[in-house]
Amino acid sequence: MNLLLFTEQDRSDDGLLHITGPRLQHLRQIHGKTVGEDVRVGRINGMIGSARIVSIDSHRALLDPVLDQPPPEKIPLTLVVALPRPKMLRRILRTVAELGVGELHLINTYRVEKSFWQTPVLKESNVHEYLLQGLEQSRDTVVPAVSCHRRFKPFVEDDLPGLLAGRRALLAHPGDYPPCPRGVAVPALLVIGPEGGFIPYEVDKLQHAGCEPVSLGPRILRVENAVTALLGRLY
Amino acid sequence: MNLLLFTEQDRSDDGLLHITGPRLQHLRQIHGKTVGEDVRVGRINGMIGSARIVSIDSHRALLDPVLDQPPPEKIPLTLVVALPRPKMLRRILRTVAELGVGELHLINTYRVEKSFWQTPVLKESNVHEYLLQGLEQSRDTVVPAVSCHRRFKPFVEDDLPGLLAGRRALLAHPGDYPPCPRGVAVPALLVIGPEGGFIPYEVDKLQHAGCEPVSLGPRILRVENAVTALLGRLY
Repeated sequence: MNLLLFTEQDRSDDGLLHITGPRLQHLRQIHGKTVGEDVRVGRINGMIGSARIVSIDSHRALLDPVLDQPPPEKIPLTLVVALPRPKMLRRILRTVAELGVGELHLINTYRVEKSFWQTPVLKESNVHEYLLQGLEQSRDTVVPAVSCHRRFKPFVEDDLPGLLAGRRALLAHPGDYPPCPRGVAVPALLVIGPEGGFIPYEVDKLQHAGCEPVSLGPRILRVENAVTALLGRLY
Repeated sequence: MNLLLFTEQDRSDDGLLHITGPRLQHLRQIHGKTVGEDVRVGRINGMIGSARIVSIDSHRALLDPVLDQPPPEKIPLTLVVALPRPKMLRRILRTVAELGVGELHLINTYRVEKSFWQTPVLKESNVHEYLLQGLEQSRDTVVPAVSCHRRFKPFVEDDLPGLLAGRRALLAHPGDYPPCPRGVAVPALLVIGPEGGFIPYEVDKLQHAGCEPVSLGPRILRVENAVTALLGRLY
């Protein structure tokens, strides 16, 4: 945790933050913080800054925050990913928030197992928690928007055209395609398939909607590594 | 598992592969393979190809391999990483093999916890197993070389000069440095610090040895994501 995130609900009338639970444990055990020391803090979806520890014990910490900096800018990428298995999904949610992606769309495809849509990881409160973990790591406060699309065709026909307006749209797909561009410096939309890839019908539909197929080379990467490697390459 | 890896010990006098244990379970349960079907196989540190299933039951599978392709080329990068906590180390070993790094050096630094060097993950047989998992994912056969260096100063003074001869040497470090270059297209050596970063003495020593500090932007990434994002950016 490189940034302690809080909401207005953590703040009392005197303006101090009342921190309890896992965040308190983390302050005490990992950082070993004591009265008078400063902690980096950020208001969720707001500014970042530092907070002086006014008191701290096993029940709670009182922090006096001064928020004076904006969070880092998001990268101008909309990410569209075929819903991965739950374990991978958790990591992708953290990674997306950590890397500064502002918008994630999880979609159904032929090779997405139906059971994946039932995972508790997709519960709104859980999604929020995993996103916060990524933000805490990279010192951001702005929670990415996550949407689920359980039907492929309506997503591609009805939603995708709006999402890719004004963006360069790329489809990462194994095959004999040009290599993924580097440092695009423009807003982009990136589509990444499931384990096992998109089926030809899906590739056709995505290409028809305006997505440009690009290759990441001969290696088949886990979805999480493909996301991170492509983001490092694009921006 | 996108590639079933084997050694000559799996091969009997008739040239067939005798597959048992976890690889057999994977063939049966995940892939649902039956007699007459083909499986992608690769000889560890050798060629890749396919194998026809001659027989398969709950005890073993017999496979008839034809190896006719070289494994994908490694990326020309030597990676130097401060030893991370065990959980992260496992992931980094898999990721390094998956992404095609040929050589990994794990080093001690001031902020590496001493206990990390005691982890069973570092046992040679475990390191090998994690590397194989990465190779199976990306269909490679060539096991990366992994070395441990438990003393920082001797590593930088005695080992590093030889490692970076003929390579562009980059030190990924938070701070006001030029951004990490893209698509270097030359052999490189990349140094990545521990959680909490290198201390100034270490940065000085690495710079003095010829490493060029570069920044990944304002976000602090987990070590594993930093590795993957930088590799995606460099090659």
